Amino acid sequence: MSAVESRLAEAGHTVPEAPAPVAVYVPAVRTGSYVYTSGQLPLSGGELLATGKVGDGVDPQLAYDCARQCALNAIAAVKSVVGDLDEVVRVVKATVFVASTPDFTGQPAVANGASELFGTAFGDAGQHARSAVGVPVLPLDAPVEVELVVEVR
Amino acid sequence: MSAVESRLAEAGHTVPEAPAPVAVYVPAVRTGSYVYTSGQLPLSGGELLATGKVGDGVDPQLAYDCARQCALNAIAAVKSVVGDLDEVVRVVKATVFVASTPDFTGQPAVANGASELFGTAFGDAGQHARSAVGVPVLPLDAPVEVELVVEVR
Amino acid sequence: MSAVESRLAEAGHTVPEAPAPVAVYVPAVRTGSYVYTSGQLPLSGGELLATGKVGDGVDPQLAYDCARQCALNAIAAVKSVVGDLDEVVRVVKATVFVASTPDFTGQPAVANGASELFGTAFGDAGQHARSAVGVPVLPLDAPVEVELVVEVR
Repeated sequence: MSAVESRLAEAGHTVPEAPAPVAVYVPAVRTGSYVYTSGQLPLSGGELLATGKVGDGVDPQLAYDCARQCALNAIAAVKSVVGDLDEVVRVVKATVFVASTPDFTGQPAVANGASELFGTAFGDAGQHARSAVGVPVLPLDAPVEVELVVEVR
Repeated sequence: MSAVESRLAEAGHTVPEAPAPVAVYVPAVRTGSYVYTSGQLPLSGGELLATGKVGDGVDPQLAYDCARQCALNAIAAVKSVVGDLDEVVRVVKATVFVASTPDFTGQPAVANGASELFGTAFGDAGQHARSAVGVPVLPLDAPVEVELVVEVR
Repeated sequence: MSAVESRLAEAGHTVPEAPAPVAVYVPAVRTGSYVYTSGQLPLSGGELLATGKVGDGVDPQLAYDCARQCALNAIAAVKSVVGDLDEVVRVVKATVFVASTPDFTGQPAVANGASELFGTAFGDAGQHARSAVGVPVLPLDAPVEVELVVEVR
């Protein structure tokens, strides 16, 4: 087990299997020293942790949990192309899309669900640049979607 | 004609001229082995294929066609900086923004209009990471906008 | 003072200090020859230039000014990791998120506030690829958020 997965396990998290590649796109692409992931939804065991918008039915704590699950799935997507997560040199950039009503402005606190998991998993190498933005709706009515760029050895 | 353009021609598609560079930004930038495109709208012959939001006036099939046109324009933008599209090693990442009412959750099927075109054009090298997200509105009231990162020789 | 900052000073702009890193993410990450910034809000002296949505209380000119301030803050974020802004070889990609009502379609003119500042600061090296998209809401109810990828020496 990679040191990354050990640290996650200590915090009670398991890296899932990456979703099966579909015909037209893949969970992640490695190019040179970088891995780009597809946008990840808060799926766990094939089910979304929640559906809906923050500010209308989804509270910020639940959205935080969703962001964390998206982050776990993004790590799984990285693993699907690099094999050993200890090959990750740096989490470079995370973009966190939060399905929001126009009056909900707490996207950063939601996005921390992802950011803090990257810290748990990768330590200093998990310190990343981040954008958090509101969107009206996401695929499958998911409350959060996270995409990632990481540098690998 | 590049093999990429031959494959597109067989499928009935022509790579357009890239939009003229404007003063303040450009259709695409090459940096090292990568090309980043600007966000591409579904313009064909200077006209948008459609305007409006999916879920309110634009049906998903029309939005799929828009995503495909955005993808063609993104390929044109890549061509404007690399010349020969056969220099493309890999389509790395596509981000597909879909102008959506808050109750439309079918962004992935819309985005397939772009993803499938990249498969047609580039074969295995067209398999990319992808994010599809809803947005309330796009420039010129376009239903779809697509941006791209590709690796080139 | 870098030539970049001299050009900005002539145009009446000062590169601010980058926001202090927070625990979970950082203003910018350098990886190889690239710097990725976090999404930047139109903060000046710790205050947002404006709050609200374009099309509902924030007019396009004010949003343009916000985009320019976001761009200044993005330059500050780059400086925080490279030190000397004259090390910037190219502004590669800017993404401009504009908090918009669904009927406001002028995101490109708003985004020019950022794009033109990059031209002022970096000259030809400031010509970048760009995406401009509407979003329903941004952190702290900011009208604009800008993220950046730049190539450095």
